[in-house]
Amino acid sequence: MNKKSASNAAGVYAATPHSPFTERRERLFKELQSRKIQGMVVAKPANVFYLTGFHGSAGTLILSGEGPLLLVDPRYTLQAEEQAGGVKVIEARGSLLSAAGDWLGRKRLKRVGFEDTHLSCAEFSVLKGSGARKVVWKNLGGVVESLRAVKEPGEVERVAQAGRLTAEVFEELLQKVKPGVREVELAAEIEFRMRGKGADGVAFETIVASGFRGAYPHARASNKQLKAGELVIFDLGAILSGYAADMTRTVFLGKPPSRVSALYRAVLEAQQAGVNALKAGKAANSVDRAVRKTLATHNLDQFFTHSTGHGVGLEIHESPRLARVEKARLQAGYVVTVEPGIYIEGLGGIRIEDTFAISTDGVRNLTPASKDNWILNS
Amino acid sequence: MNKKSASNAAGVYAATPHSPFTERRERLFKELQSRKIQGMVVAKPANVFYLTGFHGSAGTLILSGEGPLLLVDPRYTLQAEEQAGGVKVIEARGSLLSAAGDWLGRKRLKRVGFEDTHLSCAEFSVLKGSGARKVVWKNLGGVVESLRAVKEPGEVERVAQAGRLTAEVFEELLQKVKPGVREVELAAEIEFRMRGKGADGVAFETIVASGFRGAYPHARASNKQLKAGELVIFDLGAILSGYAADMTRTVFLGKPPSRVSALYRAVLEAQQAGVNALKAGKAANSVDRAVRKTLATHNLDQFFTHSTGHGVGLEIHESPRLARVEKARLQAGYVVTVEPGIYIEGLGGIRIEDTFAISTDGVRNLTPASKDNWILNS
Repeated sequence: MNKKSASNAAGVYAATPHSPFTERRERLFKELQSRKIQGMVVAKPANVFYLTGFHGSAGTLILSGEGPLLLVDPRYTLQAEEQAGGVKVIEARGSLLSAAGDWLGRKRLKRVGFEDTHLSCAEFSVLKGSGARKVVWKNLGGVVESLRAVKEPGEVERVAQAGRLTAEVFEELLQKVKPGVREVELAAEIEFRMRGKGADGVAFETIVASGFRGAYPHARASNKQLKAGELVIFDLGAILSGYAADMTRTVFLGKPPSRVSALYRAVLEAQQAGVNALKAGKAANSVDRAVRKTLATHNLDQFFTHSTGHGVGLEIHESPRLARVEKARLQAGYVVTVEPGIYIEGLGGIRIEDTFAISTDGVRNLTPASKDNWILNS
Repeated sequence: MNKKSASNAAGVYAATPHSPFTERRERLFKELQSRKIQGMVVAKPANVFYLTGFHGSAGTLILSGEGPLLLVDPRYTLQAEEQAGGVKVIEARGSLLSAAGDWLGRKRLKRVGFEDTHLSCAEFSVLKGSGARKVVWKNLGGVVESLRAVKEPGEVERVAQAGRLTAEVFEELLQKVKPGVREVELAAEIEFRMRGKGADGVAFETIVASGFRGAYPHARASNKQLKAGELVIFDLGAILSGYAADMTRTVFLGKPPSRVSALYRAVLEAQQAGVNALKAGKAANSVDRAVRKTLATHNLDQFFTHSTGHGVGLEIHESPRLARVEKARLQAGYVVTVEPGIYIEGLGGIRIEDTFAISTDGVRNLTPASKDNWILNS
């Protein structure tokens, strides 16, 4: 693309009516221009929604100097026209990727990006094998996700609303957490109450893991009944207006042995150490390091078998990762979980997780349910 | 692989204790041998579960003459050892695909299959770039799915149990379907009742689409209130013991105009025509053709904007597809939906869907909720 057409192309994006979606497309288009890439094919549903407002399960967006173009199958034509303001909607029969490739070929675009982290090898073959045979494909997987990682204030507010709803539901649920209740009953109750408070749905299948099952960090809710003297992990999150929240609490049924209380306090202390490290400009893995270091002072680091946190937004797991190897810098606008956990065979598990928003002013907990009322003497 | 080691290798699979999982691995291994392929990397969760019984969200299976090997991250070690009987479990840190590739390299396997329809381009790059650089990779996407399409009797029974539960919940719900109720309340009630009856969860987000929203074939439940004189579409399915069912019913609130009654009868007639075409040995697209032909006799085929059906099992959408272009033959053991629908702007939508099992004896409806009680005069 020569300079002149590039600046014209930018004009296509700047001229469309103001909305978060048009601003996001402008940001992505500038990113493409800085890489001397003429267009991008976006097919991952969360990315398509982020850039257009279209909420269907299948739609392929082409962003280029020709303006945004959304290809959908006939199921979604009406919905796309209603939701994707400022975007040209084209109804395609057959493969949307093939239709996208044909369009790129007709427009003679040369350097085009695609989501190599989303498209399967077979899907990419369809795209390559279409009318776009002369296109030089550039791996742009993660580029839209990087934009998404930095939330706009309106997005933080949506996660906060989902987080408040999640926290309220958990606090209401506590009165039902008693010996004899089945894990699945509590999971169902949680999800029902979320819907009742207006959630779009659940961000993931609610986890309720009691006693020995708590030693499986990602156990689902089972038919097991809760028993006195057990730890119970609840991992839950609602979706509201498309945005997710993520929270974990652990409770004990009855009077905990002093060892269990010490373990609980250690995990809480580790979470706080992680939160203290959540600062714009610091490396993402410094959060993980702070958590592990605190657990190590209690000789518990070997029981912490997953990474410390992840971004939350349109997806329940998104950029950034707060993992041991992640050196990228934290940014204001990031919304991330901090979720240390320890898993001990025979004893069970303790995990504490909240969703936090990082801003230039500090850190805000978006899932404000109490962590003190963890001993349930009923 | 030479003949001798091939037969030894088959022995590895035959010798493991009898279970559906070992039988499925034997079937897949024979399929690999017939293609002169020495091993396969399986990473799609539903396929890993089908072949091992392991129910985690991340695990990479290598099937080869060395016996089945399941790579998991530390979160899942305990769970994998418990669930995947007869499978060697290896805990890996970092990328499971990279660890799988390194293992294949060390074992000097030459021709290895992978799921090109599941692995993203970026994931496949990791696999290729690992210690497996000398491996010749074969696209085997869909091979495990083809095995899965033909259900064992135990699997049909599980879908049937999920289907009965789904049908019961819908029939109980009907008393709550009244003007003034919000779509999301009904969706929440459906999902709560499913859990209450022991469902693992929902196979997909429940659709409740009333009035004009019914013209969107995949509308989700919204805050819209139901009104007298509207059509309402319910699309729901429970998961039970890992297996899904899928069912859609449409009702009318009040006394339907004669035109709406005629439309409803036409869709029901089209579904029956599709069911009559469900016969082992017939081409899959003959079902689609029968449905469209019936709708065409009522001049409604232009309003049927999606395909006729899909397989149901461990996933809510799986092989086979009952689409216009699908020429593969139906087989005994297939479990599929037949779901004609018409979507008319201004009026709304009517869709009727059941999940059916095809056997040599005929067709069995696994979602036995009434289709006659569609007029709700409350």
